[in-house]
Amino acid sequence: MSKPSIGFVGLGAMGFGMATNLVKEGYPVHGFDVFPASVDRFKAAGGIPASSLQDSAKGNDFYVCMVASAPQVQSVLFGDDGIVAALPQNATLLLCSTVPASYAQSVAAELASIGRSDIAFIDAPVSGGALRAAAGTLSIMAGAPDAALEKGRFLLQEMSDANKLYLVPGGIGAGSNMKMVHQVLAGIHILGASEAQGFAARLGLDAKKTAEAIKSSGAWTWMHENRLQRMLDEDWHPGASALTIILKDVGIITTSARQSQFPTPLCSTAEQVYLSALLQGYGAVDDSSMVRQYFADPITKVACTKSDEETAEALQLVVDMMEVTNLVAAAEAISFARYLKVDLKQFYTLVADAAGASRQFMTKGLEIIEGLGQGASGETVDAATSRLEKAVQKARDLHCPLNLGNAALTVLYMAKKSGLGAEGSASVVKAFEQ
Amino acid sequence: MSKPSIGFVGLGAMGFGMATNLVKEGYPVHGFDVFPASVDRFKAAGGIPASSLQDSAKGNDFYVCMVASAPQVQSVLFGDDGIVAALPQNATLLLCSTVPASYAQSVAAELASIGRSDIAFIDAPVSGGALRAAAGTLSIMAGAPDAALEKGRFLLQEMSDANKLYLVPGGIGAGSNMKMVHQVLAGIHILGASEAQGFAARLGLDAKKTAEAIKSSGAWTWMHENRLQRMLDEDWHPGASALTIILKDVGIITTSARQSQFPTPLCSTAEQVYLSALLQGYGAVDDSSMVRQYFADPITKVACTKSDEETAEALQLVVDMMEVTNLVAAAEAISFARYLKVDLKQFYTLVADAAGASRQFMTKGLEIIEGLGQGASGETVDAATSRLEKAVQKARDLHCPLNLGNAALTVLYMAKKSGLGAEGSASVVKAFEQ
Repeated sequence: MSKPSIGFVGLGAMGFGMATNLVKEGYPVHGFDVFPASVDRFKAAGGIPASSLQDSAKGNDFYVCMVASAPQVQSVLFGDDGIVAALPQNATLLLCSTVPASYAQSVAAELASIGRSDIAFIDAPVSGGALRAAAGTLSIMAGAPDAALEKGRFLLQEMSDANKLYLVPGGIGAGSNMKMVHQVLAGIHILGASEAQGFAARLGLDAKKTAEAIKSSGAWTWMHENRLQRMLDEDWHPGASALTIILKDVGIITTSARQSQFPTPLCSTAEQVYLSALLQGYGAVDDSSMVRQYFADPITKVACTKSDEETAEALQLVVDMMEVTNLVAAAEAISFARYLKVDLKQFYTLVADAAGASRQFMTKGLEIIEGLGQGASGETVDAATSRLEKAVQKARDLHCPLNLGNAALTVLYMAKKSGLGAEGSASVVKAFEQ
Repeated sequence: MSKPSIGFVGLGAMGFGMATNLVKEGYPVHGFDVFPASVDRFKAAGGIPASSLQDSAKGNDFYVCMVASAPQVQSVLFGDDGIVAALPQNATLLLCSTVPASYAQSVAAELASIGRSDIAFIDAPVSGGALRAAAGTLSIMAGAPDAALEKGRFLLQEMSDANKLYLVPGGIGAGSNMKMVHQVLAGIHILGASEAQGFAARLGLDAKKTAEAIKSSGAWTWMHENRLQRMLDEDWHPGASALTIILKDVGIITTSARQSQFPTPLCSTAEQVYLSALLQGYGAVDDSSMVRQYFADPITKVACTKSDEETAEALQLVVDMMEVTNLVAAAEAISFARYLKVDLKQFYTLVADAAGASRQFMTKGLEIIEGLGQGASGETVDAATSRLEKAVQKARDLHCPLNLGNAALTVLYMAKKSGLGAEGSASVVKAFEQ
């Protein structure tokens, strides 16, 4: 039986991988992009070039939209000569772009208001990078009415890893919310990797040995491990993951948080650093370049001259700073997820195997999700505060910025003011949930 | 009757003005500085050059210390060939440097421990800039036992404006704490001036017209008015008020706040921006250069092409942002002052006529100090939050950093979570005082 033909718009780094993977799997894929060169490249890879948006949609029962942002989605779906007007009756439309949940919901509403409720619309943001896109092993967070999910499931499966297709309860918007709360962690940890390595450099520590210590400690994050080599090599051109990409995702988070009037202090702090770096011309380069916001030279230039004892003491400051900051990050992400009624067990499973993972999230985050019962034992808020405090003071003495560390310390002080000092450190989540 | 001779160390911009003012008033002043050129300049201005620290102290019953920082104070007072060892019995020692209160207290303790309790020691930080130093019209915040204040009063009066000599109750450390909580406002408003004008430039507004609007609104700050011309002229070399100066003061605040585990989110946020700018090489230039952290070009290059209506709308965003942020700044400073048991009426009087003044402090700050009685009426926390939220969102849409605005919004969200939304906006102080 021949495979159904698919329309596809947005042949950028991610979209090109996704579309050519579908070609490889035997689907006729009609691809369009605003850049003719991308369409040509897609044709060379075995795809069917579309001459317009409508041409990419006409006669295709399945359609994947992978343009970069909500305004672009709005334009390609509903603009002049847009996709929706050209889609056949009862088509299935997958929106894989990262957009605010409220925007995904507005698409469903607009489809209804123009009489196209026949279209099975799925809110299905993806994660995992260009390589996994091309291999068909992405993480996908899909939310939609059951009937739509049923129609689109085979296509979601083609694009995702068997263990990484998350059918998110809650309908349209739920997929986008799940991706968004994951990105709270990603957005913080990307800057956190730079902040930790920059602080280490200011302390006079060897970059690689610091990284080893972080990796084997409670301070580990997926982002730190992933960005490390690029940070060491200062291999930022062209950006493997341009600053503008995480800045866009973080903007969705802070904008949505404002709509809910929910505090996201660490994510907002990261956003401000990203915006400052954007002003300095870092937009198109890899986000691991943020290390330069903390240390003026390449961090590999630091030659450690400390004794073993001094080195161990300084390393402990870096690990403490990162551990406690990541704990506050986990609390921020989980409390926001809970506020948005995101399924927390699914959130935990997803994060555990994705770019937002951290050892703090896996341990303290689990305590938070499971309800701070007997589990909220171990180190107190007071003790965690003291550890972070010592690192923040040392950074200040060295005139080293420590944006996330300072923001996390403010949250901990607020938590202490709320009387949480003697509770287990995971209780810091209550600072977000009074 | 001849005037007593005075020893003086620290002939920098401020110290030189203070010492030459005393010369002008007829005192024999024995001045020393680590830079011989400064001593020569002092001699040319009628001072008596001292060849060493001990030479500046020997035989002088009164001594003024105006070096830059606590470590310098420690070195000149108690180091080898230091001042204290050379001071005559029952001398009076004025410490006018800006130092942490805990450090001023440690000086008193060290004097006692080395058997020099005979010295009448006064903790007397100053404020007002080099011109007022030279005119003998500084603000001085003096704390000490009554007997010491009695002995040093004539000298404090010579250096200060008649209305600006504050005898601060609480003994040694109280003067430094008073100066410190004043600097909470100064440290925030210095960045705030740049943030407001940078945001205005990103909005496409004329710099001078924006400044006029701010001046005549509830957003006015002394710092904005004072820094404006240098910001417009980009006249930063040599710095009239180098970034490193406010950075040192802010460091005293955040370090002291950490010792008390008291949250100072806005001041900490400003500190992080200053530290980032330091890394970019801004340390020695005027702090009004911080506007470049928000706008890449001189702000006077912006030619406003908006209609009157659009201009009014954009200006309102700037004013709203600054007003609400300054309200949170006032709450932060007053709550920290209250925590430190600073006399709040005196604090209010001092700020009203000093560099930390703002219209929000004068109005909402007074409500806070007077106890949020019937006075905490008018706009609610919810309404103030909404105003700031709109400005923060607009800045984000423009990719403009808005460090203080975002930090203030987080505080307001925390206040709302504490159930303060429907209360008068001055109630935001309770977010610091749970």
